[in-house]
Amino acid sequence: MRRRNVKNIDERLQNATPLVVLNGTSLKGKWQSLFGNDNPIYLEIGMGKGDFIIEHAKSHPEINFLGLEKYPSVLIQAVDKLKGVSLPNLYFIPFDATNLLDLFLDNEIAQIYLNFSDPWPKTRHAKRRLTSHQFLKQYEQVLNNDGLIQFKTDNQHLFEYSILEMNAYHMNFLDLSFDLHHRVNKEKVITTEYEKKFMAKNNPIYFLKAGFSHGK
Amino acid sequence: MRRRNVKNIDERLQNATPLVVLNGTSLKGKWQSLFGNDNPIYLEIGMGKGDFIIEHAKSHPEINFLGLEKYPSVLIQAVDKLKGVSLPNLYFIPFDATNLLDLFLDNEIAQIYLNFSDPWPKTRHAKRRLTSHQFLKQYEQVLNNDGLIQFKTDNQHLFEYSILEMNAYHMNFLDLSFDLHHRVNKEKVITTEYEKKFMAKNNPIYFLKAGFSHGK
Repeated sequence: MRRRNVKNIDERLQNATPLVVLNGTSLKGKWQSLFGNDNPIYLEIGMGKGDFIIEHAKSHPEINFLGLEKYPSVLIQAVDKLKGVSLPNLYFIPFDATNLLDLFLDNEIAQIYLNFSDPWPKTRHAKRRLTSHQFLKQYEQVLNNDGLIQFKTDNQHLFEYSILEMNAYHMNFLDLSFDLHHRVNKEKVITTEYEKKFMAKNNPIYFLKAGFSHGK
Repeated sequence: MRRRNVKNIDERLQNATPLVVLNGTSLKGKWQSLFGNDNPIYLEIGMGKGDFIIEHAKSHPEINFLGLEKYPSVLIQAVDKLKGVSLPNLYFIPFDATNLLDLFLDNEIAQIYLNFSDPWPKTRHAKRRLTSHQFLKQYEQVLNNDGLIQFKTDNQHLFEYSILEMNAYHMNFLDLSFDLHHRVNKEKVITTEYEKKFMAKNNPIYFLKAGFSHGK
């Protein structure tokens, strides 16, 4: 994700409340009350410029969406896309997923989306990958018992790593594709901006949906 | 695997004993005694024309190898490759792996190789795939506690299916590659005839090494 210097970023984030949630940790365990309903909460970690989550929030008013992005200068571009019109089922949180347990209570989340996460190609950076067991442990905690992870990437090595890591964590794989957009019976898939660029180049998109084997 | 009509196939198999084992089921539980040592037994299911297993048997005299092939007309071509010279650690068995439990006792095998198995692309034929849970159940039984499966294919859909099936069977994945011959730190890999053709076309070879999670 390319990042630019953005002037007055703090002020701009401040002006974008309540769409942008600046006091996320104080809402731990209370996210449903922010939305004002009991709908399930889907979380995208590393939402980037927000294409994916904005489309999902528009198409699924029965689901609550939270987008996490650690770089405020990137998150503000998602804000700009909504042009001041906020959706009642969508909030953005400038936050580093390393501290996910400061943000959510156990079982508070129903699904987690990981789209085109940073591959961190060096082995010594493996724990920074969003599918490392360090992160999986946190996801397991914040997800409810039926909770799922949906993971998409164009990076072969990150995908190989993620399969090994999730299998070692005894996760159960529900769906898998090495070429999501060329499946025989493909459903409509909401794409990210990054993904569209890759599809145009005809690069395959890898996909994995997995849950935690509670009560196995 | 292309099959040809071979004349006098029964006679030719008979002439190829003891390299070709015709009374396999009577050796159930007694394979070590056939080899006359306690070395671990590695089994290739669907050995085809035998390139892979012959190379392995030559390079690893400390391992006993058994090659299963259900089509006698294909197996006889592996026999021809040895030109009458048999290796003390290699036997071929004309046998259908569907009845694997008639051939081996529990824990009798240390590793199973599946190389370029028939993909059986139709969903209604899924149980015929050599990585279906019907087959995995048999492998689990005949493999010892540290037993492994090494699986190679060029077929994307068979590989996707196999990952899902082995994960659902709670197997633990030890190694995985979507492009075995273009790994950064690749070891020397013994290839099959079929594989060489694919490599020449620059098609990727998928690879998975997995075990059963005994005592998990």
